[in-house]
Amino acid sequence: MITEEQVRQALEKVMDPELKRNLVELGMVRDVEIRDSQVKFTLALTTLACPLKDQIMAEAKAAVLALDGVKEVEIELKEMSAEEKKRILPDRDQPGVAERFNHIEHVIAVMSGKGGVGKSLVAGLLAVALRREGHQVGILDADITGPSIPRMFFPTRQWPKGGPLGILPVESKTGIKIMSINLLLQSEEQAVIWRGPLISGAIKQFWGDVVWGDLDYLIVDLPPGTSDAALTVMQSLPLSGVVLVTSPQGLADMVVKKAAQMAAQLNVPIMGLVENMSYAICPDTGKKLEVFGPSKSGVMATQLHVPLLGRLPIEPQIAELCDAGRIEDYPAEEFAPIAKKLAEMALPARRAMFLNVPGAK
Amino acid sequence: MITEEQVRQALEKVMDPELKRNLVELGMVRDVEIRDSQVKFTLALTTLACPLKDQIMAEAKAAVLALDGVKEVEIELKEMSAEEKKRILPDRDQPGVAERFNHIEHVIAVMSGKGGVGKSLVAGLLAVALRREGHQVGILDADITGPSIPRMFFPTRQWPKGGPLGILPVESKTGIKIMSINLLLQSEEQAVIWRGPLISGAIKQFWGDVVWGDLDYLIVDLPPGTSDAALTVMQSLPLSGVVLVTSPQGLADMVVKKAAQMAAQLNVPIMGLVENMSYAICPDTGKKLEVFGPSKSGVMATQLHVPLLGRLPIEPQIAELCDAGRIEDYPAEEFAPIAKKLAEMALPARRAMFLNVPGAK
Repeated sequence: MITEEQVRQALEKVMDPELKRNLVELGMVRDVEIRDSQVKFTLALTTLACPLKDQIMAEAKAAVLALDGVKEVEIELKEMSAEEKKRILPDRDQPGVAERFNHIEHVIAVMSGKGGVGKSLVAGLLAVALRREGHQVGILDADITGPSIPRMFFPTRQWPKGGPLGILPVESKTGIKIMSINLLLQSEEQAVIWRGPLISGAIKQFWGDVVWGDLDYLIVDLPPGTSDAALTVMQSLPLSGVVLVTSPQGLADMVVKKAAQMAAQLNVPIMGLVENMSYAICPDTGKKLEVFGPSKSGVMATQLHVPLLGRLPIEPQIAELCDAGRIEDYPAEEFAPIAKKLAEMALPARRAMFLNVPGAK
Repeated sequence: MITEEQVRQALEKVMDPELKRNLVELGMVRDVEIRDSQVKFTLALTTLACPLKDQIMAEAKAAVLALDGVKEVEIELKEMSAEEKKRILPDRDQPGVAERFNHIEHVIAVMSGKGGVGKSLVAGLLAVALRREGHQVGILDADITGPSIPRMFFPTRQWPKGGPLGILPVESKTGIKIMSINLLLQSEEQAVIWRGPLISGAIKQFWGDVVWGDLDYLIVDLPPGTSDAALTVMQSLPLSGVVLVTSPQGLADMVVKKAAQMAAQLNVPIMGLVENMSYAICPDTGKKLEVFGPSKSGVMATQLHVPLLGRLPIEPQIAELCDAGRIEDYPAEEFAPIAKKLAEMALPARRAMFLNVPGAK
């Protein structure tokens, strides 16, 4: 005769892959019914849209089927109540150790949707300009499969150190704190062939397990797309807002609007639009050449109801400095007013999202 | 006296309604025990959650009870091992009906790792050039969050039709068959905010549920990165090889090498390298301007041991044509030799990956 106790013990061996605790401990196993060799129970998940649902169900089923005498297992799914979820979700109760000691005033994500429009360049120049103003600045490189930030800031290979509270970010020449997957890889050309959950996990660790200390601004450099990385940053980090980057290239327009729509859907304010690669300058004639066609950013800013923060030219000099790890040597005069505008408009990070911030609840 | 042979013969008349083959042939009938007028056996199903379980059991029971001398039938259910399932399911990923009727000779993925270097442009021009040579050509747009292909090929909004076998791709002016998420969205600016498993699912559907028919070449346009989309295409589609796209922009080099490493790790041959945005032409002086710095693609091709297929300039004209859905009007003389080289070197799609292809196992 199979007992409920045996079923529960079997299910104690199944972990929720995200919450890293077993199903019984999480209070997910309910209404166990045993009839001869048939076992039926309900699994209460934190969300029925859980992408790992099938995996959890399969593992739960296999665990119970492994019991002597069980021939059939039926699982019903339901969603936990908001109250129940709150008790077990870790983001709210159990941040990384480092996170409890960090004080980050403003978190600004640089996003585009479209690749190759210069998100990382804008993120880097924004950090440089804010640092020049005397602020404490960090950059969290959330592009896990195509990270560009370390190459811009470090002429030679750097390795982060570990501290008692977590990983220490690497400091640039002017004191910008940087964390990127490329600082942790054996070789910077090594491919990171990860599916979404690992990408999200790495970004959460860069937030929760990195000793950022006291920062006025943390700039988050997002990869292209509106999938896992962008979702994780928008859902798990207390963003002040996002800066959208576009270029006059055909198609950028449409894809950047998808990014804008994502931000709107997730209630993240759009702080403004930066157009990169607006024009090149002919070295012989000094004329502006619109090599990717005429600018569309003015129209786009109006359509999105966001300020156009500025337009940046294509500059062979900056490509060279970035490749040499010397972005901080670039005068970036065009960028100072953009950074100033952003600093003025940046609301404090949405602290209420995080219980561990003093005073927030 | 009832024999096991008789029982098996009776069960050969019972079909699995989904797999359309009989239970014995599928290896589902096991451990037949006969004691006087009592018959007992085990049915190993592909899943215990099978909605047709009861029907199959009832039919199996009736078939055996119909044998002369049988008075009682007892059936035990179990689930097949992963290994056993693999042997009988048409394909682990359950391909759509369309896939069984498609005949696609060569599948070429266009990849970069880096965003914004012109993957979609290269994919589009490659398709156009192959079509001009008289081949049957399709484009599978695997960039689910930032799809660019429809905008290049269609001046007005198009909607795919459904057929009895699956979704029909939309045909371009010159007869290139195209499938993209943007052909299925309400508005092309709608954001697709999906985590990895959904992205992978969509790509698999574009392969398995789209009625491509007979194609000489299917070009797959990949998004940036080495995560879900690239993994799914490399693991689930029978690729002939990948074409890598790079640009002289700083950092492209490093990120494209990550893509090359991924292809190597997943045993997908790299057919060659195309450098896009190599230079712009000053309209006043006619001089080539290397606006993103000097070309690095020659060195890179040597390092990766792959042929450098060609270098494409930045062309305001092509940006305009792409934006207007008229890429097929572009003469693309630079591209004809690239397409020719690729066509010559493309090996047949790795058919052995798919059980449903005749002759493969």
